[in-house]
Amino acid sequence: MDKWEQRKRPFRLERRFEFEDYESTRDFLDRLGELSERTKRFPDISFGRNYVNLTLRPLSEDDEALLEEGDFQFASQIDELV
Amino acid sequence: MDKWEQRKRPFRLERRFEFEDYESTRDFLDRLGELSERTKRFPDISFGRNYVNLTLRPLSEDDEALLEEGDFQFASQIDELV
Repeated sequence: MDKWEQRKRPFRLERRFEFEDYESTRDFLDRLGELSERTKRFPDISFGRNYVNLTLRPLSEDDEALLEEGDFQFASQIDELV
Repeated sequence: MDKWEQRKRPFRLERRFEFEDYESTRDFLDRLGELSERTKRFPDISFGRNYVNLTLRPLSEDDEALLEEGDFQFASQIDELV
């Protein structure tokens, strides 16, 4: 959890993951996809051959919405996928 | 090919794909992943539940590099995945 950066306007959590090769990147994305389907949470994801950038926003679509406990829990679940 | 936007600084091709649901988004990403492994080309990809944004850059890492025939061919190959 300490590697996630908390940002404002709108409130969000961001983290960059780096991988050795494309296969590892895809493995992580596959696990993340399964987690998304299970939790019904779909973060914004950017990736290339060796990296994945994630942005987690509060469930509420309101631009002023604050991060809640569930958002930090979801971040921790993602950390466990690595 | 006509749905790709050609941009400068650096030269690149960009296109947004939209999907009905997360399953369709993941299907497309899976096919794109296979294409990347086959062609050894790894575009920058951003996606969420219902969309995928792609950025194709010239193979050369030089910031001044121009788009070449192979880049447009790769874009067409991606269009065929939808």
